[in-house]
Amino acid sequence: MTWTITRNDLTNIELLNIESLFSIGNGYLGVRGNFEEGYGDDMSSVRGTYINAFHDVTKITYGEKLYAFPETQQKLLNIIDSQTIYIYLGEGDDRELFSLFDGEILSYERMLHLDRGFTERKVHFLTPKGKEIKLLFRRFVSFAIKELFVIDIQIEPVNFTGKVELGSIINGDVANYTNPKDPRVSAGHAKRLTVEQVKQKDIYSYIEVKTMESNLSSSCLTSHHLNTDYKEKIHTREKSIEVVYTFDLCKPVQLTKYNVYTDTLRHENDLFQAGLKIHNGIIEENVISLMEQQKQYLDNFWSTADVQIHGDDHVQEGIRFNLYHLLQSAGRDQKSNIAAKGLSGEGYEGHYFWDTEIYLNPVFIMTHPEIAKNLLLYRYYILDGARARAREMGHSKGALFPWRTIAGTECSPFFPAGTAQYHISADIAYSFIQYYLATNDFDFLKKYGAELLIETARLWIDTGHYDQGAFKIDEVTGPDEYTCLVNNNYYTNVMAKHNLSWAFKAYDLLSKQSQDTFHELKQRLQVTNEEVLEWKKIADDMYLPYDEKLGINPQDDTFLHKAIWDFENTPREKYPLLLHYHPLTLYRYQVCKQADTVLAHFLLEDEQHFDTIQRSYDYYEKVTTHDSSLSYAVFSIMAAKIGYADKAYRYFIETARLDLDNTHGNTKDGLHMANMGGTWMAIVFGFAGLRLKEEGISLAPSLPVNWSGYEFNIKYIEQVIHIKIHVDQITLTLNKGDHVAVRVYDQIVKLSPNQSFHVPLLT
Amino acid sequence: MTWTITRNDLTNIELLNIESLFSIGNGYLGVRGNFEEGYGDDMSSVRGTYINAFHDVTKITYGEKLYAFPETQQKLLNIIDSQTIYIYLGEGDDRELFSLFDGEILSYERMLHLDRGFTERKVHFLTPKGKEIKLLFRRFVSFAIKELFVIDIQIEPVNFTGKVELGSIINGDVANYTNPKDPRVSAGHAKRLTVEQVKQKDIYSYIEVKTMESNLSSSCLTSHHLNTDYKEKIHTREKSIEVVYTFDLCKPVQLTKYNVYTDTLRHENDLFQAGLKIHNGIIEENVISLMEQQKQYLDNFWSTADVQIHGDDHVQEGIRFNLYHLLQSAGRDQKSNIAAKGLSGEGYEGHYFWDTEIYLNPVFIMTHPEIAKNLLLYRYYILDGARARAREMGHSKGALFPWRTIAGTECSPFFPAGTAQYHISADIAYSFIQYYLATNDFDFLKKYGAELLIETARLWIDTGHYDQGAFKIDEVTGPDEYTCLVNNNYYTNVMAKHNLSWAFKAYDLLSKQSQDTFHELKQRLQVTNEEVLEWKKIADDMYLPYDEKLGINPQDDTFLHKAIWDFENTPREKYPLLLHYHPLTLYRYQVCKQADTVLAHFLLEDEQHFDTIQRSYDYYEKVTTHDSSLSYAVFSIMAAKIGYADKAYRYFIETARLDLDNTHGNTKDGLHMANMGGTWMAIVFGFAGLRLKEEGISLAPSLPVNWSGYEFNIKYIEQVIHIKIHVDQITLTLNKGDHVAVRVYDQIVKLSPNQSFHVPLLT
Repeated sequence: MTWTITRNDLTNIELLNIESLFSIGNGYLGVRGNFEEGYGDDMSSVRGTYINAFHDVTKITYGEKLYAFPETQQKLLNIIDSQTIYIYLGEGDDRELFSLFDGEILSYERMLHLDRGFTERKVHFLTPKGKEIKLLFRRFVSFAIKELFVIDIQIEPVNFTGKVELGSIINGDVANYTNPKDPRVSAGHAKRLTVEQVKQKDIYSYIEVKTMESNLSSSCLTSHHLNTDYKEKIHTREKSIEVVYTFDLCKPVQLTKYNVYTDTLRHENDLFQAGLKIHNGIIEENVISLMEQQKQYLDNFWSTADVQIHGDDHVQEGIRFNLYHLLQSAGRDQKSNIAAKGLSGEGYEGHYFWDTEIYLNPVFIMTHPEIAKNLLLYRYYILDGARARAREMGHSKGALFPWRTIAGTECSPFFPAGTAQYHISADIAYSFIQYYLATNDFDFLKKYGAELLIETARLWIDTGHYDQGAFKIDEVTGPDEYTCLVNNNYYTNVMAKHNLSWAFKAYDLLSKQSQDTFHELKQRLQVTNEEVLEWKKIADDMYLPYDEKLGINPQDDTFLHKAIWDFENTPREKYPLLLHYHPLTLYRYQVCKQADTVLAHFLLEDEQHFDTIQRSYDYYEKVTTHDSSLSYAVFSIMAAKIGYADKAYRYFIETARLDLDNTHGNTKDGLHMANMGGTWMAIVFGFAGLRLKEEGISLAPSLPVNWSGYEFNIKYIEQVIHIKIHVDQITLTLNKGDHVAVRVYDQIVKLSPNQSFHVPLLT
Repeated sequence: MTWTITRNDLTNIELLNIESLFSIGNGYLGVRGNFEEGYGDDMSSVRGTYINAFHDVTKITYGEKLYAFPETQQKLLNIIDSQTIYIYLGEGDDRELFSLFDGEILSYERMLHLDRGFTERKVHFLTPKGKEIKLLFRRFVSFAIKELFVIDIQIEPVNFTGKVELGSIINGDVANYTNPKDPRVSAGHAKRLTVEQVKQKDIYSYIEVKTMESNLSSSCLTSHHLNTDYKEKIHTREKSIEVVYTFDLCKPVQLTKYNVYTDTLRHENDLFQAGLKIHNGIIEENVISLMEQQKQYLDNFWSTADVQIHGDDHVQEGIRFNLYHLLQSAGRDQKSNIAAKGLSGEGYEGHYFWDTEIYLNPVFIMTHPEIAKNLLLYRYYILDGARARAREMGHSKGALFPWRTIAGTECSPFFPAGTAQYHISADIAYSFIQYYLATNDFDFLKKYGAELLIETARLWIDTGHYDQGAFKIDEVTGPDEYTCLVNNNYYTNVMAKHNLSWAFKAYDLLSKQSQDTFHELKQRLQVTNEEVLEWKKIADDMYLPYDEKLGINPQDDTFLHKAIWDFENTPREKYPLLLHYHPLTLYRYQVCKQADTVLAHFLLEDEQHFDTIQRSYDYYEKVTTHDSSLSYAVFSIMAAKIGYADKAYRYFIETARLDLDNTHGNTKDGLHMANMGGTWMAIVFGFAGLRLKEEGISLAPSLPVNWSGYEFNIKYIEQVIHIKIHVDQITLTLNKGDHVAVRVYDQIVKLSPNQSFHVPLLT
């Protein structure tokens, strides 16, 4: 049963959350889990359909605009709504509009199938006037045909037979959701699309919309298929099309609505033709075969991505749900990435953050590196923009990636917790390195990775300076947004160090293994030998703050001198603090929104002694609120590393069902993607202790007491290793590949095909 | 001649500056120096009339709004325009509209009379068709009748006699000036007034306008007086009134236009009646007698305020011009203060900053303390707002004054260089203390000062914390806006220390000298004895950063560890830096916009050894750009103190004619009031070395080499001391009062009435 998420609640507040939880998508197209037939009076809903990266450009208004504050930002748009299908039962005075909120529900079940990739609602219903019917609503966004969103409705008569009217609407008159009270949700710019075309041609209903500023168009081409005799009436309106079918219900009837979405970022300019071409392919299939394709795609996905938890269905459900949504959210076309909320909602306006590189790519790198590769290529394609931004920010060299963006320009209007987070450039570099370590994809390094590493390394050279013999980086913000604009943020410095040393390594590798590329790159980027040596020297000289008295790495130069936040007298309802305190108040205290130094200790554990890492963990844990959903996973991983098994599990549990249980209270705005990646990381990097380094991969597994075991796969240089931790034993099996060495604890294990290797579990 | 400023330039660019330079005002009403008859085609002008503190409330829009960011701000409004008077000469085909930009100027002179308080234009003119006339335009805003703005025009025929048409307009259809490119000027909200009444009654033309949000009204009631026979035609339009006079010009003719401005912040709600009452008083006077009143008022002002410079008319002009504008700008009604640009322009939206307390009050405290008292009372009346803001900012006690405001609420949308400048609360406290020291006004201390000192002291207690035995204040911004959000800004800490110790002193004084007030205050503010002792203890324990190696006071905990700005490779056109670099870039370097630690060393010189002060001066001078006009005066004062005579004079010269010579390039947006106060300070505190402390006043005069001498008055505990430094001698004379002791260098001089005392000038 853990392949199915069931949600039968029908309260408004829960339905809003389920809209996000049951959103369906494929990295290109996403549709929230709204009801086809609508809701009861006074109920609210965030009805949404999104194409990844399909955005408009909106003006940013500042009370006081200073130099190089971004003038515009991008905003993911809610596009043409094809979700609506209403149902009338009976005729004349007896006619009734079906609504779950007006009548008697005899039975109701709503499910998301993680293994088959669709959602469904099974309804057994009695209308106020006594018509009894059964309804089955199913919907999916196809993984095989990225433009396709299918709704399939089956109506089965029980005591009622007679006239039925099905009205299907495609609506171009749409707007984005706004909430001026919450900085995490957009406050304006709701209406950004104009309807350019509304037409009916043959069996096709077609609407095309255009953005106000970004000059992008998108379209929806819909066809309906009804397995009974019917009368059809089509209303083509100014901004919508309504297709009305009337028929006699005397046996089960099925209506299938195929909606094909296209956009000018990905398709030829004649979107109607583009949609038609795709439609022609679909019509040869039927729903059954399309759903079969869906299953096949997911079988392949789960074959490496699945994590099995033995003895805890609750967690099992959580991890699969989270991984499933990762898959649904990841752009694969290099023009898009993974938005903070995926394609499940409008929170953070569809922007891409560091979340991808630090919380999401690790999952893909180790399970489906082809997806990670596309996500990294997106970064490569916005590298020119990052170079331009660095110039604008006063740097003579290097590339500064935007803190949040869709099309590549900085979209953060609040620089202390935005542009100042320079670490994003090192985070992206880190992910390129991790991808290279996991795949050994030298071709990728040659074509893209080396250039990116060099340009980000140059940023650090230009940002920092020597002071008392050490290289220091001033006036940046680390991951913890409750502490902004500081000098020598440990996280930033250590990540920059890694970035610099890998720019050197990559350059060196190229010089040895690919002379042609090497010379081309050296020429094009005008790299000098002195510069290359400087990367290495500065990496070596990088200042990593260390407090002798406490034996920990201070988060920055001044953090430890501040007063500690008065946690004792902060009531529960004041969390998250950012919604109840001015940033200045938060900045004034030792209080962290999320893992910062602790995250650095995970990403680059070899930079510090274990004791320092442990003491730092102990220190920061006391002052961290986890107001950011990016925090728990990291604390779980590090607790596991240190040996705090209880804590590791407690933090892990917070991640596993954060959205399923709406523990942050804002799941309706969209799912917390980074946290979802974090769940996988907490299991694989945390409990299983996986690390991916230059010298290879290693494991240091432990088993949470609540479980009898767990198992998962990792892909490493095109080989697939199955790892099972059960009771007191670790079993490694090479499911694909020739041979690979894995360090388990202190032991090197050499795996051969289809041969299991056992190591006793240390406790 | 140094009582008259002459400006005969007629280029557009200069006329814009002169609009500010020749603006006239009286602290209540201000009118820019626009031409009555208008300008040539394609010429631009910022036509402005302002009532101090008459504002609308506008919404602040943020790209990302965080907790306790102010939602609205106030904006000084450009109100009803009564400046326009056009002149037609001749009739039929011969009719010509007078414009200085269409015809031949035979002679032209434009003057501002600092001693008589009016501006005038003398024009001898030949029209394109050959009509030769002489015109005299005079205008003033009355110091005696604050609501009154008078325009007086005399037309004298030369070769031309015949029909003349004078059209006078009162226009309610006005808007504010905007410039979206400059953060120092407003970017929007131009149109904030609706015209509520337009009527003609008897000889009176009346327009009343109302703000969109703040629910304030203002009105202009105008009457015209013409000393010849005429025909009158009145056009009452939707938003304006045009009064047209036609007459035969055969002898000199004079038109006087009396405009009486009222507003609901100061007058009864029936503004028409309020205006009428004032008008009735005026009509009994004529222009000559009104101008005589003007002269009398100024005679009194200059009797203590004037500074005479011997041997340098250029500087003489500068200091008088600056003092004159100080007088024109200072609100005297406790509902208003001194805007950053006075009433001369719209820069900084008419907001009041710390400028008043640190740069302007010193002048008034020492020359016209009755004006200073009103300015301080304004602060007292917004104390409740400051208490509320402190709560909003998370402080359980105390008062946090807004960084910029009109009506008392925080109007700064960019908190790192706004709200974070907590020092403004200590600056206000400092000014209350200085006023008390200069006047010995115990009644004022009892009624207002003690309460303000206590509430500001409480802010520091709640903001700071103990760390390693010292009291520290984290996450504030000092005066230097190129370094934001720092810990232990020396300026803030030392000013807070002073604030705390004076809260203690004031409380102690009250307990000894005014038991009733003491108990009332103690009760009302719920002051505990422990708390009072805490003020003293924390003042004593205040951390004042000191760098052993350099022997200077670091600007803050991290300033000295940053890289020094690359001044050598920063071209001239990149200044002011804030218009060419992102704040993050500026924050990253040792670069100061203005005096910070150096200012603290002036305000509280006894906190540090002379050597520390000198070394600090030397250090900070190298990294200060003086991009703020608040910087030169302080550097001049401190250079004079240290003995850097050349530097003292060079900095002084920058202040003396900053606006007259438009050295900052933005005089058209309004005059730099703080700098104007700074000129006086540089002379009196700088060259003459005046200090006002608990132990009395002292002088340490020096004489700039360019001058043969200088003299000025100061008012000290209701006595007026004349101080003259000439060639090699200092002469002190008690012009008013019984006896007073002044320390001159190391010598105590005891003055008796009308008896001069000589001290040799040290060189």
